[in-house]
Amino acid sequence: MLESFSSLVSRYRVIFFDAYGVLKNARGVMQGVPELLSWIIRQGKDVYVITNDASRSPAQMAAAYVHPEHGILIPESKNISSGLLAKDFLRAKVRTGRVAYLGKPSSAFYIESAGLTPVHISSCRATDELAAIALLDDEGFDWYRDINMALNLIRRVTAPVIVANPDLAYPVNDQDVGLAVGSLALMLERIVGKSFIKFGKPDTMMFSHAFACAHENVPDLDKSDILMVGDTLETDILGANTFGLDTALVLSGNTRPDQAKLMIQAKGIMPTFLCESVFT
Amino acid sequence: MLESFSSLVSRYRVIFFDAYGVLKNARGVMQGVPELLSWIIRQGKDVYVITNDASRSPAQMAAAYVHPEHGILIPESKNISSGLLAKDFLRAKVRTGRVAYLGKPSSAFYIESAGLTPVHISSCRATDELAAIALLDDEGFDWYRDINMALNLIRRVTAPVIVANPDLAYPVNDQDVGLAVGSLALMLERIVGKSFIKFGKPDTMMFSHAFACAHENVPDLDKSDILMVGDTLETDILGANTFGLDTALVLSGNTRPDQAKLMIQAKGIMPTFLCESVFT
Amino acid sequence: MLESFSSLVSRYRVIFFDAYGVLKNARGVMQGVPELLSWIIRQGKDVYVITNDASRSPAQMAAAYVHPEHGILIPESKNISSGLLAKDFLRAKVRTGRVAYLGKPSSAFYIESAGLTPVHISSCRATDELAAIALLDDEGFDWYRDINMALNLIRRVTAPVIVANPDLAYPVNDQDVGLAVGSLALMLERIVGKSFIKFGKPDTMMFSHAFACAHENVPDLDKSDILMVGDTLETDILGANTFGLDTALVLSGNTRPDQAKLMIQAKGIMPTFLCESVFT
Amino acid sequence: MLESFSSLVSRYRVIFFDAYGVLKNARGVMQGVPELLSWIIRQGKDVYVITNDASRSPAQMAAAYVHPEHGILIPESKNISSGLLAKDFLRAKVRTGRVAYLGKPSSAFYIESAGLTPVHISSCRATDELAAIALLDDEGFDWYRDINMALNLIRRVTAPVIVANPDLAYPVNDQDVGLAVGSLALMLERIVGKSFIKFGKPDTMMFSHAFACAHENVPDLDKSDILMVGDTLETDILGANTFGLDTALVLSGNTRPDQAKLMIQAKGIMPTFLCESVFT
Repeated sequence: MLESFSSLVSRYRVIFFDAYGVLKNARGVMQGVPELLSWIIRQGKDVYVITNDASRSPAQMAAAYVHPEHGILIPESKNISSGLLAKDFLRAKVRTGRVAYLGKPSSAFYIESAGLTPVHISSCRATDELAAIALLDDEGFDWYRDINMALNLIRRVTAPVIVANPDLAYPVNDQDVGLAVGSLALMLERIVGKSFIKFGKPDTMMFSHAFACAHENVPDLDKSDILMVGDTLETDILGANTFGLDTALVLSGNTRPDQAKLMIQAKGIMPTFLCESVFT
Repeated sequence: MLESFSSLVSRYRVIFFDAYGVLKNARGVMQGVPELLSWIIRQGKDVYVITNDASRSPAQMAAAYVHPEHGILIPESKNISSGLLAKDFLRAKVRTGRVAYLGKPSSAFYIESAGLTPVHISSCRATDELAAIALLDDEGFDWYRDINMALNLIRRVTAPVIVANPDLAYPVNDQDVGLAVGSLALMLERIVGKSFIKFGKPDTMMFSHAFACAHENVPDLDKSDILMVGDTLETDILGANTFGLDTALVLSGNTRPDQAKLMIQAKGIMPTFLCESVFT
Repeated sequence: MLESFSSLVSRYRVIFFDAYGVLKNARGVMQGVPELLSWIIRQGKDVYVITNDASRSPAQMAAAYVHPEHGILIPESKNISSGLLAKDFLRAKVRTGRVAYLGKPSSAFYIESAGLTPVHISSCRATDELAAIALLDDEGFDWYRDINMALNLIRRVTAPVIVANPDLAYPVNDQDVGLAVGSLALMLERIVGKSFIKFGKPDTMMFSHAFACAHENVPDLDKSDILMVGDTLETDILGANTFGLDTALVLSGNTRPDQAKLMIQAKGIMPTFLCESVFT
Repeated sequence: MLESFSSLVSRYRVIFFDAYGVLKNARGVMQGVPELLSWIIRQGKDVYVITNDASRSPAQMAAAYVHPEHGILIPESKNISSGLLAKDFLRAKVRTGRVAYLGKPSSAFYIESAGLTPVHISSCRATDELAAIALLDDEGFDWYRDINMALNLIRRVTAPVIVANPDLAYPVNDQDVGLAVGSLALMLERIVGKSFIKFGKPDTMMFSHAFACAHENVPDLDKSDILMVGDTLETDILGANTFGLDTALVLSGNTRPDQAKLMIQAKGIMPTFLCESVFT
């Protein structure tokens, strides 16, 4: 039942890729990815990355996919991230003020570029006046001290709380996973009883955004011309299914080859295709 | 702190309305709504209805807002419903076959118009071959017999289960609410452990769809030109906030005047404005 | 890995049985059960039924396990049900007044015998003064009308809401399940945001109650002398594990033979023994 | 509506106290508590502490309530903790082997005294053979490193996971709360999809245990002779209500005076009495 990924490419005009678990792993971009992307682009396909990630700027994301000869393969404008949606929200709805954030210093990009002032959670005081609180990444802060600080800030302020990555966990190697900021957000939501504003798959907004971009390039583009490639049933596949895209689940990340069929049946989330990886 | 709704209208170019609890109640379209809509449209505003509803066709929805002189005020194409998204999904992803549905016979419109064959849940047999199962409305079937039938169909088949209205409850009069199909869906999801495909606010897809329509009419339209008017914090306001729109919470439906401030603070979902109703 | 149930019996002094899926199925007491119970009792074992059931009185329960020669095998006092705990609660904490209930007329026993006045949900009016609301069984009322009535009563009154059976579903035949009142309770809890008072496994109170009874008969009884036999991981096995008892999961009810190992691993709920049924 | 706590004491024969938020706060035993307990005991009342705590041994707990003249007021045997239930479980059901734990070194008492070998989470290796994993306290480990280690151990092993304190948060001063191990447990349960074994209120097992102890001293003791005093609706009051005890909610801990009535109504958890503190 496993399909060859390269044989699928010819059937579509546009390919949406998840990054982590598909093109990247814990050690960076997987070997062979630049050549693969380069080959796909040479077939005339339009390629986008759709990623639940607010820990890197679009420029950093674009710099990851570089071919020795062809240079940057996926420009900033085609790296659509949940961080980008968070930035749009902050600019449109919050507009001005200080935003406390959990994440690496590089996550602050999305706050700064929205015209607001990022304040790393470790520099916050309980009495700070805040325009929003942003849960951006699971790294870059002291969990014990700063998750407790975030909890108390969220209890006290009436500012919106945004989550720029709803993932629960991510693979760090063949055996282990890391706990992602989406899990921390669910825990905090549960304790305080509030609803946070969440950006990222399975919500369909990134797909709408990418579709609108692709549509500008290809005016007669139909959703059936697009293939979404991802490694996670609950985000990549559920979100793209909801948006109406064909989907390929690759088994190089969150979904292990020996559990794929079981998980698909247990969760009732069905990809159109199943591929061992993008290198098949 | 209550704003006059009519004074807000002038600040926006496009108004998105939720239907139930805003323009309609259990007895139908509220008195004065045709005149109000007519007045707004005469100001040159573009008006859309964005509704979690799969129990009526767009034609039926359009026929609700009629002015004695000006006729139909909101044409079919501007009545954006969760049923419509469900239809798009069925056409794009399911394509052919029989779809068992829970809802009134009029809900079958969304299955039929997608080119599939609707089978009312009461006519299903446990052994039926099904391309999908659709939870569309809380009325039109025998709850005891048919919810149990749906539960067993969902356990057995591997077809996708779609929910075209994630609302938990809706007001039926000043005192009482009715249990909506979204509550039934959550209950079934919990029992079987599967993830259903859900259409409707707070997911942002209807807002994307309506924004794309409005954008065609007004090419330089910005999200800040749009006001979303709704009665429910968890769907209307949370969804529109996430999409980046300004929001007005009206107190004529799910959110009672005496609880509004409390609910806003407890849930952390903040509307831009608070209005007693659209008639202020 | 499957053990013979009869070979386990000799290792224990007291056997706790779940009823439904173990000794009974949708057609009543399983064939061979009276002979089996009779044989166990003749070995000098003390036998109890520990059941999430509030649809039958202890007398009705006792009358189910009858041997043609030896008569009633498990007397009323050894049929410990969640309904009994609900009765104790009503007597101790509510004491007097009218209690609206969802369930069959026979469920009213637990309210009446606590000295309160049962009012079947179908006879309730929205303005009734109520001392408590009791969710007892999934049968005996019109789901559409009466679940909506219960929802609105629960929203309005400040009286406690009790749930005398937290089960989500129960097997009705080899293929199908029925939706149990515990699922309805979770749905209503979610809509209104309240915490109901729940009686039944996996809470350990029935085990404490049965242990105290058994301890009176056998003063040097230790928890390690007791085997709990059940068909459901999340209630029978989790509850008895928490209470510190050895457990045997039988595959004649909620847990299907082909899924048992998978479910045990997925849920992390581990029985001490696995038996095809009590007839092995 | 506030009652004087001292006037309630005379109506009962046995008083159950929660510790944290009632008799203790973040700085230790509250001023005046030894005198108060001493006075209650001199009235001939039997006094117990019922606490969700696995961070201290019973000896440490007993040593907290000391009167300059009367010495230890609540002996070890009357300090009933969730840690104690966890110990009983480990001894009865796990019996032998290594148990990885999250908590302070003092939490290891409950593992050691059950005859097993505690291994602090920070000393665990991913390949360790483990008989159980115990989530005991929120302090005493590096959250980032060790919560991730716990997550991966829980994913890999088939051993039971026990949680000896289901609290979500606890007050650390008039303004702030600390995130408790119960929140970490819920987060991990959600990520891995397993059911952990939880000890502590609102489960009724500690109340059963304390009732059995009190019953030995006072053979004709009835549940109506006991008052449970606590600061948390979802654990102290819900659990004691379920067990059938009268309850007094004190406003010196998790439930703030200005929110008490609102919380009671919103959650539907009703104490018998409301007292500002135990010093009234």
